[in-house]
Amino acid sequence: MSGSGYDGFPHEFSAIAEGIRTMEIRGAALIAVESARALKLLAGTGADLDMLEEAGRLLFNTRPTAISLENAVSSCLTGAGTPQEVAENADRFIGSAIEGKHLIGRYGAERIEDGGAYITHCNSSAALSVFKAAVDAGKRFDVFATETRPWRQGLITVRELAEMGIGTHFIVDSASRHIMGEMNIKGVFVGADTICSNGVVINKIGTSMLALAAHEARIPVYVCAESFKFSPETLHGKLVPIEERPISEVIEPGEVPDVTVHNPVFDATPSDYISAIITEKGVIPPEGAYDLIMRFFGGDERWTP
Amino acid sequence: MSGSGYDGFPHEFSAIAEGIRTMEIRGAALIAVESARALKLLAGTGADLDMLEEAGRLLFNTRPTAISLENAVSSCLTGAGTPQEVAENADRFIGSAIEGKHLIGRYGAERIEDGGAYITHCNSSAALSVFKAAVDAGKRFDVFATETRPWRQGLITVRELAEMGIGTHFIVDSASRHIMGEMNIKGVFVGADTICSNGVVINKIGTSMLALAAHEARIPVYVCAESFKFSPETLHGKLVPIEERPISEVIEPGEVPDVTVHNPVFDATPSDYISAIITEKGVIPPEGAYDLIMRFFGGDERWTP
Amino acid sequence: MSGSGYDGFPHEFSAIAEGIRTMEIRGAALIAVESARALKLLAGTGADLDMLEEAGRLLFNTRPTAISLENAVSSCLTGAGTPQEVAENADRFIGSAIEGKHLIGRYGAERIEDGGAYITHCNSSAALSVFKAAVDAGKRFDVFATETRPWRQGLITVRELAEMGIGTHFIVDSASRHIMGEMNIKGVFVGADTICSNGVVINKIGTSMLALAAHEARIPVYVCAESFKFSPETLHGKLVPIEERPISEVIEPGEVPDVTVHNPVFDATPSDYISAIITEKGVIPPEGAYDLIMRFFGGDERWTP
Amino acid sequence: MSGSGYDGFPHEFSAIAEGIRTMEIRGAALIAVESARALKLLAGTGADLDMLEEAGRLLFNTRPTAISLENAVSSCLTGAGTPQEVAENADRFIGSAIEGKHLIGRYGAERIEDGGAYITHCNSSAALSVFKAAVDAGKRFDVFATETRPWRQGLITVRELAEMGIGTHFIVDSASRHIMGEMNIKGVFVGADTICSNGVVINKIGTSMLALAAHEARIPVYVCAESFKFSPETLHGKLVPIEERPISEVIEPGEVPDVTVHNPVFDATPSDYISAIITEKGVIPPEGAYDLIMRFFGGDERWTP
Amino acid sequence: MSGSGYDGFPHEFSAIAEGIRTMEIRGAALIAVESARALKLLAGTGADLDMLEEAGRLLFNTRPTAISLENAVSSCLTGAGTPQEVAENADRFIGSAIEGKHLIGRYGAERIEDGGAYITHCNSSAALSVFKAAVDAGKRFDVFATETRPWRQGLITVRELAEMGIGTHFIVDSASRHIMGEMNIKGVFVGADTICSNGVVINKIGTSMLALAAHEARIPVYVCAESFKFSPETLHGKLVPIEERPISEVIEPGEVPDVTVHNPVFDATPSDYISAIITEKGVIPPEGAYDLIMRFFGGDERWTP
Amino acid sequence: MSGSGYDGFPHEFSAIAEGIRTMEIRGAALIAVESARALKLLAGTGADLDMLEEAGRLLFNTRPTAISLENAVSSCLTGAGTPQEVAENADRFIGSAIEGKHLIGRYGAERIEDGGAYITHCNSSAALSVFKAAVDAGKRFDVFATETRPWRQGLITVRELAEMGIGTHFIVDSASRHIMGEMNIKGVFVGADTICSNGVVINKIGTSMLALAAHEARIPVYVCAESFKFSPETLHGKLVPIEERPISEVIEPGEVPDVTVHNPVFDATPSDYISAIITEKGVIPPEGAYDLIMRFFGGDERWTP
Repeated sequence: MSGSGYDGFPHEFSAIAEGIRTMEIRGAALIAVESARALKLLAGTGADLDMLEEAGRLLFNTRPTAISLENAVSSCLTGAGTPQEVAENADRFIGSAIEGKHLIGRYGAERIEDGGAYITHCNSSAALSVFKAAVDAGKRFDVFATETRPWRQGLITVRELAEMGIGTHFIVDSASRHIMGEMNIKGVFVGADTICSNGVVINKIGTSMLALAAHEARIPVYVCAESFKFSPETLHGKLVPIEERPISEVIEPGEVPDVTVHNPVFDATPSDYISAIITEKGVIPPEGAYDLIMRFFGGDERWTP
Repeated sequence: MSGSGYDGFPHEFSAIAEGIRTMEIRGAALIAVESARALKLLAGTGADLDMLEEAGRLLFNTRPTAISLENAVSSCLTGAGTPQEVAENADRFIGSAIEGKHLIGRYGAERIEDGGAYITHCNSSAALSVFKAAVDAGKRFDVFATETRPWRQGLITVRELAEMGIGTHFIVDSASRHIMGEMNIKGVFVGADTICSNGVVINKIGTSMLALAAHEARIPVYVCAESFKFSPETLHGKLVPIEERPISEVIEPGEVPDVTVHNPVFDATPSDYISAIITEKGVIPPEGAYDLIMRFFGGDERWTP
Repeated sequence: MSGSGYDGFPHEFSAIAEGIRTMEIRGAALIAVESARALKLLAGTGADLDMLEEAGRLLFNTRPTAISLENAVSSCLTGAGTPQEVAENADRFIGSAIEGKHLIGRYGAERIEDGGAYITHCNSSAALSVFKAAVDAGKRFDVFATETRPWRQGLITVRELAEMGIGTHFIVDSASRHIMGEMNIKGVFVGADTICSNGVVINKIGTSMLALAAHEARIPVYVCAESFKFSPETLHGKLVPIEERPISEVIEPGEVPDVTVHNPVFDATPSDYISAIITEKGVIPPEGAYDLIMRFFGGDERWTP
Repeated sequence: MSGSGYDGFPHEFSAIAEGIRTMEIRGAALIAVESARALKLLAGTGADLDMLEEAGRLLFNTRPTAISLENAVSSCLTGAGTPQEVAENADRFIGSAIEGKHLIGRYGAERIEDGGAYITHCNSSAALSVFKAAVDAGKRFDVFATETRPWRQGLITVRELAEMGIGTHFIVDSASRHIMGEMNIKGVFVGADTICSNGVVINKIGTSMLALAAHEARIPVYVCAESFKFSPETLHGKLVPIEERPISEVIEPGEVPDVTVHNPVFDATPSDYISAIITEKGVIPPEGAYDLIMRFFGGDERWTP
Repeated sequence: MSGSGYDGFPHEFSAIAEGIRTMEIRGAALIAVESARALKLLAGTGADLDMLEEAGRLLFNTRPTAISLENAVSSCLTGAGTPQEVAENADRFIGSAIEGKHLIGRYGAERIEDGGAYITHCNSSAALSVFKAAVDAGKRFDVFATETRPWRQGLITVRELAEMGIGTHFIVDSASRHIMGEMNIKGVFVGADTICSNGVVINKIGTSMLALAAHEARIPVYVCAESFKFSPETLHGKLVPIEERPISEVIEPGEVPDVTVHNPVFDATPSDYISAIITEKGVIPPEGAYDLIMRFFGGDERWTP
Repeated sequence: MSGSGYDGFPHEFSAIAEGIRTMEIRGAALIAVESARALKLLAGTGADLDMLEEAGRLLFNTRPTAISLENAVSSCLTGAGTPQEVAENADRFIGSAIEGKHLIGRYGAERIEDGGAYITHCNSSAALSVFKAAVDAGKRFDVFATETRPWRQGLITVRELAEMGIGTHFIVDSASRHIMGEMNIKGVFVGADTICSNGVVINKIGTSMLALAAHEARIPVYVCAESFKFSPETLHGKLVPIEERPISEVIEPGEVPDVTVHNPVFDATPSDYISAIITEKGVIPPEGAYDLIMRFFGGDERWTP
C-alpha cells in the first residue's frame, strides 16, 4: 500500500494519505477532517470523478478500521455527480465537524454543575470541549483525569485542563472506583472511537471498567462523540476489531522474558452503563445509535469503497 | 520515634524495629514474622516482662496502622507470664505463619482447574503460594498479572510466575475487564492487607475494580490471607485509613504543574464481590470474618499497646 | 412580568396567561391546552402574526420551565403563515390532546389484568385514564395509591379511583416496597412532567424510588404521558431543573427551628427502571424518546420564543 | 371457522389456509411465506380485490395471534389497487423473507468467533442460519443446544448442527447456567416469535431464563428475527398473549392425577437481557424495535383485517 | 390481660407492666430496661422465684412480639437460682443496656467523616448516639432526617440533632433517593426493631426503601442496634409479624370513604443492603446475626415464658 | 471395591454397604442413616474398635464424594473409645437425623403463608417436610413442582404433594421464571446435596437457575438441609465435584449420533441467591455455614478415614 499507489496523484493529496497511514496524522476527528480536505484539494486540481473515487479508496485503505475516516470519505463522495459537488460535500463535512465539536461542548456543558467534580479518561477532544464550554459559561469545578496506561495520555489531558483554569487532579487508572467513593464525583465524560448500531461504545482500554464503576455508584456516564463516529457497518453485523498494539508500549524490551504481554487499545462498553451520548445532533440514549445511523447515514445509496 | 527510643535495647532488636519503621522490611506477612522474631530475640537476652511489653509498644509504633504487626505482637504478649512464655508464643506465631502460607496454598490450589486461566493483582505472596501449590500438584494453567500502577509490582509477579513454569501474561490494570471477556478467565486470586470484621477487604489500589468486574462476569474472586490480617480493631468500629503515598511514585517531579496528584495505596472491596477468603484456618465466606476474629482473637484479655 | 405586559391584549387572553402564571391553572396537560386556547382566542380577535408571536412569548414566560406549555405554543406557531393557520394549529393541538388522553387510556388498559393489583403515585390524569379505560373494558382490579407527601395528592387519586368503582387502597409513600412484597402487585402506572431525549423521566418526587423498588421486584413500570411532555430542549443538552417549593408545604412555620427543610418537587427516574412509556403515539421503550422527539418535534423550523 | 368459510375459494388457497389453521404448516416464517403465496395464487386465478381482502381476513383468522402471518397479509394488501399489485407485493414479501434469512445469517455470523462455544434454545431457523453462515465462512466452533421441553425441539436442532459439521452438544434446559460457568460460552443465539414495540422478546418458554443467566455471566444474547416478527399492534398497547398448550405434551394421560399441569409455550424476555436483535434490516438494540416498526410498518394506511 | 392479672403484685411492678402494655412506655430499648427494672423491684420486695417467673410471663405478654422485652426478661431469669440472682441479672442487664448505647455511639462515630452528610430515618436512639459521639469527638457534619410518615418522628429527630449543633435537614420520605444524588451523602444510619438470625433487619416502615436506594448508589448502610434486638426465636423459624396500626394515624376519619387504608409499621430489609450492624458487641456483618445469637443467647437453658 | 473387601464382616453390614455402593440405597439422608445403622449393627456383633474403623473406611469408600455419609461415619467414630460408644454415637446420629427432619419442617413451615404459592425443585424430603408441617398446621397453599429433567423426580414430588392435600402444580423446568411472574409465587423451597463452608449450595441441576430467577423477582429462596449436609472438607479448600451421569438418562441410545451429551447432576448456587438455610440447628444465613461447621464438626479430633 506504499507510495507507488499514488501515481498520478498530486503531492498534497498523497502527503495527507501517507500521513494518515503512518499515523503522523491521528485521532478519529483529525483523520476525518484531513481526508475530506484531501479530497477537496484533489477536486480543486481538476481531477475527474473516477479519480476522486479512486482517491476515496486509497484514503479508506490507509486505516481500514477507522470509522471516522470512512464516514468522512463517504460523506464527500455519496451523491456527488461532479468534482465540484465532491468539493462542496467536503467543505460541508469539514464545517460540520468543527461546528460539531462546538455543539457537543455546549450541550455537554449543561451537565456540568458549579462546584462539581468529574472524571475523564484518556485524552478526548470532545470531552475536553465540554469542560471548556463549561468554563466559558463561568462554572467552577474539578476534573480527575486518569493516567491511561500504557500511553499515559492523561498527562496531556491534565495539562490542557490546568490551562483552562480547572481544578485538575491526576490518578492512576485503577484508583477510579476508590476516588468515586471519596470525592463526590458527579459524572464521567469520555470520548469514543466507534459507536455501534446497538449502542455499544468502543473507546480507549479502561473505559468499560470506569463506566462499570460509575454505574455501580449511580454516577452518570456521558460519551461525547461526533456523529461520524457512529458505524453504519455495525448495522450489518460487523464486530469492531479490538486492535492489539506493540508490547513495547507496555514494557521495556527484555524486561520480563517468558511472559506474554497483551496490549489491547480499546474495549467495549455496553449501553447499560452509558447515560447518554452527546453528539452534535443532540443528546441521545446509547440505544438511539440505530436511529441516528439510519437518519444520517442510512440509505442504500451511501458510497462505499 | 527515632533511635533514642531504643536506649537499653540490644542492637538486634532495634535493627529489626528500625527496618520495619523505614520500610526496608515490608510486606504484611514479613513485618509480622520479624516483629515476633524481635521479641523472641529480646526474651533470649534476659529482658524482663516490662521490657518486653515496652518492646511491644515500640514495635507497634513503627507502623501503627499495620494490623499484621499488631496481631503478631499481641500474639506474643497475650497471656504470657514469663519471658520464656513470650519466646514460646513468638515461636508458635512464627511457625503458624510459615505453616499458614503453606495451608493457604494447599486450600487455594483446589480451586485451580487444569487448563484454566486466572488473574492476580499486585504481588501477593499468599496468592502466589496458591499458584505454586497448584503447579506442584501437576496442574497446568495460565495467570494474567496486572501491572499494578504506580509501583508496577506486577513485574515482580510475572517473574515469579514464569519461574514456576506457569503460562504467564502481563496486562495494564485497566485491561482486566476486557481480558475477562476474551480469555475465559476462571477466577481471580488476590491478597489482602487488612480484613474488617464485616468482611470488607482492604488491599492494593485497584483490587475493588478488579473484583467488581469479576463479579459482573460471574467469575469467582478469592482473597488469600493469613488470619493475622483480620483486624480485631474494626470490630470496635475502627475504619481502616487508606494511606496516601508520595506523588513522586506516580509522576516525575514537575511533570504536571498545577495538578493535584492523588496516590491512595489501598482500596476497600465489599464482601458482595468476594466468593471466599482462603485462610490457614479454612476457606470462609467474607462475612465469616466476624466469627474468625471472635474465635481466634476474641476475649478481653488480648494484649494491646 | 405582571399585568402591564399584556397592554393591547384582550382580557380573555391575559386572564388565561395570568391564570397559568399564578398557578390557578395548573397541571402539565391543562396549561398546554389552555395556552393553545388562548392563542386561538387571540387569533379570533383579529390579531396579526406579530402579535400572536408576542403572545407566544408572553405565554412561554409564564412558566418558562414547563415543557408542555412550550410544546403547545410551538405547535400553534410553527409553520403558521396567517392568524387563521395559528387558530387551526391550536384547534388541532387541543383536539389531539383530548384524543391523546383517550388513546393512552386505551393502550394502557391492555396492560391491566383482571384480578390484578397496581400502584400509582401522585395524581396523574394520564395514569387515571388507563384505570378508567380498564374499568370500562369490564376489568376488575385493585389500585394502591401513595399519599404523595407533601401535597398528599394521593387523597384526590383515591377519591377518583373509588368513584370508578375500583378496589382502592391508600398507603404512605414509604410503604410501597413492603406492599409490593405482600400484595401481588402486577404493575406500576405513573405520569410524567417531562421526558428527556435519553429516556429519563422527570416526575413527582418519589417516582424514582417507587420505580427502583418495582424494578427490584421485577414489576413492570409504565409511564403514561402525552407526546407534548417530551422535551426537544433536552436534545440540546438542557438539564431539567428540579424545582424547590416553599418549605411551608412540608412543615408548619416555626415547627422545627434551626433545621433546613428541602422540598424538591420532582425527581429523575432513569430509563433502566421503566418498562415502557405509553403515549398517544404508541407504547415505546423509554430510549425511544429520541426517536419520538425527532419524528414529531424535529426540524429546525420549530418555532421558539 | 371450518371448511364452509372457503366457499368460492379455489382449493389451492383453502388447502394452505387450512394447513395453517390445523398447524400442519407451522413456524413463524413458514406461515408468513405460505400465506403470501396463497394470496399470490388467488390473485393469479382472477380473484378481484374484494375477494383478496376477504382472503386476507380468512388467512388472518387461521392464527389470530401470529404476528408474522398478519404482517405477511398486510404487506400483500397494503396499498394494492389491483390484484396484480397484490401478486407483486406477495412476490416481494416472499423474496425478502428468503433474502432476510440469508442476511440475518451473514450479519450474525460476524459475531461467531473461531474456536468459540455458543448456546441455542429450541429450533430457530434464523439462529441456525447464523451458525450455517459462520460454518460457510470457514469458522470452527461448538454449539450447545438445549433439549427444550416439552417438545424437545433441541433434538432437531442438534441433528441440523451436526450435519453442518459443527461441534454439537446437547443439555437439559436447566443445565444452561452450569454450562455457562464451565464451558467458556461466548454467546447465546435464539429466535423470536414476536418482538414488541418496547423491545420485549416473546419466544419459546425458557428463553427468558437462559437470557437472564447469560446476562448474569456477561455473555451476549442475540435474538435472530426477520422484521416481520415485530408487532405493530404492541405499539397500540396489545399485550402478546402467552398461549397454553395441551398438558398431554408434558405428561402422559393419568400420569399424575389431582395435579394441575401448566404448559405455557412462550415467555417474555425483557430488553435488558438482550444485547442486540439481528434482523435483515440490520443489527439493532432491542429498544430500536419502536424505530423499526415505525420505519417499516408505520403509517395509518396499513391494511388491517 | 387487664389489671386483675396483677393480683398479689406490688403496685410499682404492675404500673410498669401496664405502662408497657398501654404503650405509655415504648421504644425497644426502653421497654427492655423497664421490664428488667420491674423484676429487680419485685425481687427487692421479697418475691420468691415462682412469683418472679410469673412476673416474667406477665411482662412478656404485655407486648408478645417485642423481642427486646423478651430478651430482657430472659436475661434476668435465665440461670437465676434465687431472687437475689434475678436482681443481679437485672442490674447487669440494665448496666449493659446503658453501656451498650454508649459503645454503639463510639463504634459508629468512627464511620462519620468530618464534613460528611448522612441520612437517618425515624427516631432511633442508637443512631442518634452515633451522631452524638461524633459531635463529641469534634466532627462537623450534616444529617438529613426523613419525616417518617405516618407518625412524623423525624420532627423529634431534627430537634435532637439541632440541639447537638449538627447541620440538620428535613425531607419527606420519598425524597431520599433524590437527595442521595444531589447532596454527597456518605452513609445511612438507622435503628432496628428486630434482627433475624439470617441477617434480615425489621425496622420502621420505609427503612428497606431507603436501604435499597443507598445500595443502588453505593452508599453504606449502618444498622445501629443493641444485641438485645437480635431474635433467638427467628433461629427457630419464627417470621417476625409486621404489625398493622390504626388507619387513623394515616388519615382523618372519613377523609376517604370506600378506601382501604394500610398502615404497616415495619418492613424487612434484606442483609444484601446492609453494610454492617453496629452493636455493643462489635461491628458485624448482618450475616453475623446467627453467630451473635448463638454466642450470647445460645444454649437450651435459656428461660422462656 | 467389590465383595471380597468385606471378608470377615457379617452379612447384614456388607448388605448395607453394597446397597449404598450400587445406589439401591440412595438419597443423602438415607445413606447417612443407613451407614450409622450398619456401624451400630456391627458393634452389636462384638466387633472391636479396629474392625469398626475399618468398617468406617469401607463405608466411606462406597460413595467417596457423599458428604452426608462421611459426616455420619465420622459422627459414629469420633471420640468413641469402645464399640459400645460407637453404638451409642450411631443411635444418637440416627435419632438426631429423624428429629432433624421434623425440626426443619417445623421451622420452615413458619415461612409458609396461608393462601400463598411456592415452587420446589426435584424431590427433596427436607423441603417436603416443610410443606407437610405447614399442612399439619392448618395452612392452605399451592406448590408448583418442576419436572426436573432428566430423571423427572418432579413426578414423585407432585404425587407426594397431592397426597398431602396441597394444591399441586407441575411445570417444565424452564417455565419457572414465567410462572414466578404470573402466579404470585411467595417463596422457593429446595433441598441440598452439600453445603460448602462459604455458603455455596450444591444441589440438583437447575437449582441455581431457579434461585437466580427468584432473586431477580425478589422472591425468597430457602434451602432445607440437615446439618450433616454441611461439608467440613470444603473448609480445607475441597471443591465439590459435579458428577456427570450416563447420557442414557437424557437421550435414547443412538437418538442423536455425532452429538456430545452432557449430564451434570448438580450445580452450585452462590450464597447471594439464598435467603436462609433451614437446618435442625436453626434458620441461618448461607454465610453461617462456616460457623455451623466449626460449631458442630470443628476440632482436629474429628475421625477421618
